[in-house]
Amino acid sequence: MPTSQPIKAFLDKGPEYLPSVSVDCVIFGFHENQLKVLLLEFKHTKAFALPGGFVFKEESTDEAATRILWERTGVKDIYLEQFHTFGEQNRGNWDVHKATMSSHGFELEVEHWLLQRFISIGYYALVDFSKVQPTPDIFSDLGDWYDIHQIPALILDHNMIIDKALETLRLMLDHKLVGFNLLSETFTMNELQSLYETILDKKLLRANFQRKMLSLGILERVKKKFSGKAHKPPYVYRINQNQ
Amino acid sequence: MPTSQPIKAFLDKGPEYLPSVSVDCVIFGFHENQLKVLLLEFKHTKAFALPGGFVFKEESTDEAATRILWERTGVKDIYLEQFHTFGEQNRGNWDVHKATMSSHGFELEVEHWLLQRFISIGYYALVDFSKVQPTPDIFSDLGDWYDIHQIPALILDHNMIIDKALETLRLMLDHKLVGFNLLSETFTMNELQSLYETILDKKLLRANFQRKMLSLGILERVKKKFSGKAHKPPYVYRINQNQ
Repeated sequence: MPTSQPIKAFLDKGPEYLPSVSVDCVIFGFHENQLKVLLLEFKHTKAFALPGGFVFKEESTDEAATRILWERTGVKDIYLEQFHTFGEQNRGNWDVHKATMSSHGFELEVEHWLLQRFISIGYYALVDFSKVQPTPDIFSDLGDWYDIHQIPALILDHNMIIDKALETLRLMLDHKLVGFNLLSETFTMNELQSLYETILDKKLLRANFQRKMLSLGILERVKKKFSGKAHKPPYVYRINQNQ
Repeated sequence: MPTSQPIKAFLDKGPEYLPSVSVDCVIFGFHENQLKVLLLEFKHTKAFALPGGFVFKEESTDEAATRILWERTGVKDIYLEQFHTFGEQNRGNWDVHKATMSSHGFELEVEHWLLQRFISIGYYALVDFSKVQPTPDIFSDLGDWYDIHQIPALILDHNMIIDKALETLRLMLDHKLVGFNLLSETFTMNELQSLYETILDKKLLRANFQRKMLSLGILERVKKKFSGKAHKPPYVYRINQNQ
């Protein structure tokens, strides 16, 4: 079994991890009016999960989140923001971990470190999914983008983790607009409204939206060039970096 | 030493706690244009700290936060909301814990569970401090309210934890209406504005503030009673419970 060596190496790392603490990453992807989320599909068991993992004793939880995302999906250079820690006593049963490891030839005892109680610190990000091509890791057949309206049943409490991340993303949309970096350098009010409508999953009234966006004080209207056409071109904006 | 028995009982509980996970509570108190925070002052060492503690294997982190606040300050029936998890590799040194325990007659070895790395899940609440009288626990001489502008140096990263809680409180003021349970059933726009100004620590323009509050769609204007006085009394509002 070609994967058994790296999986054994992973299992042997148990003592190097901080007990009880795990990290899960919710990577939202936006492109052309679609909102997606990055999921892994496990080998053999075909279970779906968020990219997640454990925290080394010698790293911060922020460092762990960045490393885990990279190790499990090949995705890097993404700014991850912590949004919530999931600390229910029973966050789901670990049968799926037992089954996954068993399918790779490792039978875990009930006392095994991987089957203990973990809280999970959730991190999220919003990226352009057309620019991010995930590659699956040793545990996964597939790392791919799934439409937010068509998310399969996930292991443990991972569907709830996505719900909470989406709630945070929507709540923070105004505050974090600059950081998300999804728009091109200049954009029209139409393009900005499409981004909002897709993430909020509802239509917005143009006049209200425009008034609210302009009142945030972060948009700068770019000087119009003479287009030479008969129709009046739309105003173009950019983010005011001084704000 | 009269406190040594309960402190020994606490230290003996180590194996019942979830390793690596602690909880800290930031309880903000508002009353008459003052914003305070609830702090404990340790016995003997006179160090200051947030009310904090550890999570039993048999409880959720939310349950732990409620229990810890009650055990350490006698304060209960407060809705605590999680705001951030602090996961730096070195969140401060544990000398203060060693010194505290030593002052009670317990010399801890470096491998002692209390001196291991812990992440801390932060919870916050906003209450009326005139209605909450904290009582110190076995570790503390004093549990008292400190003005937000006069917070002493605290153990570990607790000053940073308060900063982050305050940032969250301010960011959430509109979204969660966290402050509204602090007002009496009916209130004037003036009273509401004072609450906001105290929490945000800045003066607000009356016209803008009123427009913004009314646009939230949660305030209901109460029918005015004829006052019999010459001056026009201010409008009185209450929260529209149907919203």
